[in-house]
Amino acid sequence: MYSFICDYSEGAHPNILKALADTCYEQNEGYNYDQHCLTAAKRIKEEIKRDDVDVYFLPGGTPTNLISITACLRSYEAIIAPSTGHIEVHETGAIEAAGHKILPIETPDGKLTPSHIQKILNGFEDEHTVRRKMVFLTNPTENGTIYKKAELQAIRKICDDNDMYLYIDGARLGCAIMAEGNDVKMEDLPEIADIFYIGGTKNGALMAEALVIVNDKIKPDFRFHIKQRGALTAKGSVLGIQFEELMRDNLYFKLAKHSNEMAQKMAKELEGLGFSFLTQSPTNQIFPILPNSIISELEKSYQFYIWEVVDHDHSAIRLVTSWATPEEKVDQFIKDLKQFI
Amino acid sequence: MYSFICDYSEGAHPNILKALADTCYEQNEGYNYDQHCLTAAKRIKEEIKRDDVDVYFLPGGTPTNLISITACLRSYEAIIAPSTGHIEVHETGAIEAAGHKILPIETPDGKLTPSHIQKILNGFEDEHTVRRKMVFLTNPTENGTIYKKAELQAIRKICDDNDMYLYIDGARLGCAIMAEGNDVKMEDLPEIADIFYIGGTKNGALMAEALVIVNDKIKPDFRFHIKQRGALTAKGSVLGIQFEELMRDNLYFKLAKHSNEMAQKMAKELEGLGFSFLTQSPTNQIFPILPNSIISELEKSYQFYIWEVVDHDHSAIRLVTSWATPEEKVDQFIKDLKQFI
Amino acid sequence: MYSFICDYSEGAHPNILKALADTCYEQNEGYNYDQHCLTAAKRIKEEIKRDDVDVYFLPGGTPTNLISITACLRSYEAIIAPSTGHIEVHETGAIEAAGHKILPIETPDGKLTPSHIQKILNGFEDEHTVRRKMVFLTNPTENGTIYKKAELQAIRKICDDNDMYLYIDGARLGCAIMAEGNDVKMEDLPEIADIFYIGGTKNGALMAEALVIVNDKIKPDFRFHIKQRGALTAKGSVLGIQFEELMRDNLYFKLAKHSNEMAQKMAKELEGLGFSFLTQSPTNQIFPILPNSIISELEKSYQFYIWEVVDHDHSAIRLVTSWATPEEKVDQFIKDLKQFI
Amino acid sequence: MYSFICDYSEGAHPNILKALADTCYEQNEGYNYDQHCLTAAKRIKEEIKRDDVDVYFLPGGTPTNLISITACLRSYEAIIAPSTGHIEVHETGAIEAAGHKILPIETPDGKLTPSHIQKILNGFEDEHTVRRKMVFLTNPTENGTIYKKAELQAIRKICDDNDMYLYIDGARLGCAIMAEGNDVKMEDLPEIADIFYIGGTKNGALMAEALVIVNDKIKPDFRFHIKQRGALTAKGSVLGIQFEELMRDNLYFKLAKHSNEMAQKMAKELEGLGFSFLTQSPTNQIFPILPNSIISELEKSYQFYIWEVVDHDHSAIRLVTSWATPEEKVDQFIKDLKQFI
Repeated sequence: MYSFICDYSEGAHPNILKALADTCYEQNEGYNYDQHCLTAAKRIKEEIKRDDVDVYFLPGGTPTNLISITACLRSYEAIIAPSTGHIEVHETGAIEAAGHKILPIETPDGKLTPSHIQKILNGFEDEHTVRRKMVFLTNPTENGTIYKKAELQAIRKICDDNDMYLYIDGARLGCAIMAEGNDVKMEDLPEIADIFYIGGTKNGALMAEALVIVNDKIKPDFRFHIKQRGALTAKGSVLGIQFEELMRDNLYFKLAKHSNEMAQKMAKELEGLGFSFLTQSPTNQIFPILPNSIISELEKSYQFYIWEVVDHDHSAIRLVTSWATPEEKVDQFIKDLKQFI
Repeated sequence: MYSFICDYSEGAHPNILKALADTCYEQNEGYNYDQHCLTAAKRIKEEIKRDDVDVYFLPGGTPTNLISITACLRSYEAIIAPSTGHIEVHETGAIEAAGHKILPIETPDGKLTPSHIQKILNGFEDEHTVRRKMVFLTNPTENGTIYKKAELQAIRKICDDNDMYLYIDGARLGCAIMAEGNDVKMEDLPEIADIFYIGGTKNGALMAEALVIVNDKIKPDFRFHIKQRGALTAKGSVLGIQFEELMRDNLYFKLAKHSNEMAQKMAKELEGLGFSFLTQSPTNQIFPILPNSIISELEKSYQFYIWEVVDHDHSAIRLVTSWATPEEKVDQFIKDLKQFI
Repeated sequence: MYSFICDYSEGAHPNILKALADTCYEQNEGYNYDQHCLTAAKRIKEEIKRDDVDVYFLPGGTPTNLISITACLRSYEAIIAPSTGHIEVHETGAIEAAGHKILPIETPDGKLTPSHIQKILNGFEDEHTVRRKMVFLTNPTENGTIYKKAELQAIRKICDDNDMYLYIDGARLGCAIMAEGNDVKMEDLPEIADIFYIGGTKNGALMAEALVIVNDKIKPDFRFHIKQRGALTAKGSVLGIQFEELMRDNLYFKLAKHSNEMAQKMAKELEGLGFSFLTQSPTNQIFPILPNSIISELEKSYQFYIWEVVDHDHSAIRLVTSWATPEEKVDQFIKDLKQFI
Repeated sequence: MYSFICDYSEGAHPNILKALADTCYEQNEGYNYDQHCLTAAKRIKEEIKRDDVDVYFLPGGTPTNLISITACLRSYEAIIAPSTGHIEVHETGAIEAAGHKILPIETPDGKLTPSHIQKILNGFEDEHTVRRKMVFLTNPTENGTIYKKAELQAIRKICDDNDMYLYIDGARLGCAIMAEGNDVKMEDLPEIADIFYIGGTKNGALMAEALVIVNDKIKPDFRFHIKQRGALTAKGSVLGIQFEELMRDNLYFKLAKHSNEMAQKMAKELEGLGFSFLTQSPTNQIFPILPNSIISELEKSYQFYIWEVVDHDHSAIRLVTSWATPEEKVDQFIKDLKQFI
């Protein structure tokens, strides 16, 4: 049984584990003040070509979203997000538990547009309603799709025009950056977002995300928010070491590239076999639509999610590859599938 | 410069890092449903001789406290804690940010007693006040002291008599269990506490705590609380593997024993030199009272906290040893100190 | 300038003010333990023919909604509500500020149906999502429409089948009960809702709502919730006296009947003039669709909300009448409007 | 049976009830935008001789405290308060439920001093602790004592020196202002406090407090906070009318003066009889220490709280008078008491 369930099925990349082993008796400052965090932050600043940002390392996507949002907002300020956004559907109301309303928007492919946002802004706003203060988007989206640079810039503009923060959840950011057709560079992100994160857990880390704060208004007292939400890691060096390795010799991007290539190889084969897809994903998550009979056969040897019922006889499944997916598993999957046609 | 600042200065024990490296390509279920979490939970159940408990693995002490407390309480229910308790002073108001009042009690040595608790219970209680619903204690305390079994049983009784939960923060539990003079066994804990945790981060893990829920009333929907507070680790196996190793061949207790021995060796030497201590600690944190002149000299070669001003010429310092403290560093410290007398 | 903006433009009914004046030197127990609250609760129990309910008097709709919902739910539990619901759009995120997610549903007329609710229930639910635990509805709705008894019973059933509470916001409950075509009796409400309120502020009170708790699970410790949210009125008798008077000689229902009649008189006239309506409202809020040119003329003498742009030349306006609306104002409005046709 | 339990036993002053009756058919803007609120705010500005403040009318002390504090603070910021403060002991954890920690201080008489505050400020503060950001005090205190102007100025100074807000809970402010020995004028308050309230409910109103915001940093978006916490009264004119009347012809101060005089007459008599007091209160709450045998006799005809056990045979009781206490009740109480000596 091989799993295409997600990109966090495997552990961490060997380089990371070697670095952790090599430093296990080293004494470090706690709480992200260690040399590894400093070095990793420096490498990230070089990558995005900005020295005037604050970088924090956090142990997971949900705490990163939660802390970023609560640090930006007062209690009556709300977040506009796609209805497929992780904060809206898959964080057990974490944002609301911290006091903030999410204003969800239905989208065809998980991507927000200025007109989506404008629709929410057109609603009546005074002290009887929440104030719209932040836009949340994910790149790549939960549907595997990516934003073009011009699309992000247009969203930046509507945020500027309406005094809203723009937060980019980059849980799989590497896969967006390395996707075919992408024109967003790492150095573009601080021009576009007020705050964003570079996801490590879904790209070869044990558990680590790198949060980048660009907007000066968000910087003060940020460590108070991290600690209060339980995410100020005592052994901060463990997080720093992971990003030190990911940012060494482009490992982060190489892993994302591999991950994309494995999914895209499957996508190309499936397309060649005449199957269509729920969304046009150039990243490591693809959503082919298959006859239910074939799905049943595949389920005997592979794990994956059935994502959506398409019609009586067809469903879309989600196939996710990772930094660790061997090419032979991808080949075998296609080979097996061909048998069931 | 050698550090006696804390027991989380070093990384993880080599056995843990080896296990993580050995399994890095292994595919696992996410979110603590993997085989390593299951095995680690089984070992913990054997250790405490109880099969009817729920065990969860969490990535740090503050989220473990936060989740445990919020899962137990309604919004108007409060926690009684020593004023030195971690939740009261060192979690940036995390418990209050989640909606709950802490009722702190001054104690001489960090240890709660039934009479301390009774004093709070004697206060007026109706719908204008918070309801007293939980007692929080730490073993060993932040002062290095430990509870005797009879002392814990007496607190259990006052909790039973007043319909309150008892939660034990075991961030350094191994050090309490392995301390000279301790009579509390691992298997006693589920008889005493409704919910408690076995701390890993301060005893050789990268970042991992094992939370044990004994009381059936706390068990339902607990995973919702973990996820909502951002602590449901995607790569749960990373946490499971750490406790699998710590629970193999008594490693957890061996590490704690070493940690205690290093501190106690220093304590014995200091006592022999005529110094007194702020508290009677048999664990890995000691608080010797030294002349300020000696402290200044020691600070040139060692890192430690100055804990409390005792009089014009003397202060108590905190020395903390860990699973990784080499005996020669302890010997060197005493040797250096003798020079300054 | 006469206002059809809302039903809380005027003060309280003279009977209420007389009773307050008559008792101003009377000494009463504080915090709703006084004789007036007891008497008013008794009258409400008689009205709904149930003695086994708890009745509380609260000083406004938003605190009543907030307290009712937070008392019912744990932090990870969510409320299903129509997207027009007061808690969703007009309470500044009060429910989220208290930690709970609202799952909004688009409806054509503000009325929930079992199929609306089922759509939300069909979504994936586990510890990564909020639990669906409560259905919130308003009768009459913010659109002036009312529920038939069978419709409410069908919603009750889907709540029973899915272990959810049903909460009815009755800010204008009197207007629903007294509407033409209504078949819901006061005594039906405790059979249908777990908790509901009888609105006073919008029906002749100064500021007072009567909350009725039917479900035994919601009853314990309810006063703690009221106090914690700042709504336990020191001079509780002021609230009790208001409902004592409203429940005397059917005053509550007489006022609602008048309010409905005034709006319906306008509706009938408008219909006769060939105008259509946004919704079919038999209550004291009507939403006629008028040419913008007529609206502009009316605005010179009357206050009302322009509710929705219908097409380039037409908008729906909201006209609200109250217990205090004089029939001559209604007649004058129609007379004036006829001039502009 | 006559009650000295509290100063909110009776209803409102007849002038207020007359004004409510006289305006009952008047149409007003909702939500505190009406003419009565505007007029009342103007009168308050004149009283405190400051035109650059914001004034809001709120329906009770607990919501006023809650809203004021949450509007001033971020989630990691805390309030320093006397351990007898209403927010600490008698609001069911309302402040914590909104996310903020209270740092309580033991005082001999309910009055904070700079040295009390300094003790809290001396504690370690960094991102592991809450930030000290606000000082809360009540004048007069819950113990009936009052602050001298110089004492308040000294607290203002320590707030300025440490970047903290000063909030004054004036639930019984009139009684402080009118107390013998008081040197604080209404116009001094905006010089001292960043935000404070003038309590109406305990001084002749039905339910109304006037909140004054002095510090410009607290002013923006304040109405969002009021609405979100459920305290934006639909019929805002009801609140405005109450303060219009209280501020007309010094009624507010006349009522407080009467209230003080009634308590002080009892105090003088008790003193003459040789009894001592728990605190030196010049206001409408006094705490005489009486033999338990006399207390038992008094309880047959009077209601009051037994406040504190003093020794085996003596207790302190609390006697509270109000704007409505008739002098003959005070005389009768003393006469009755003399019989039991």
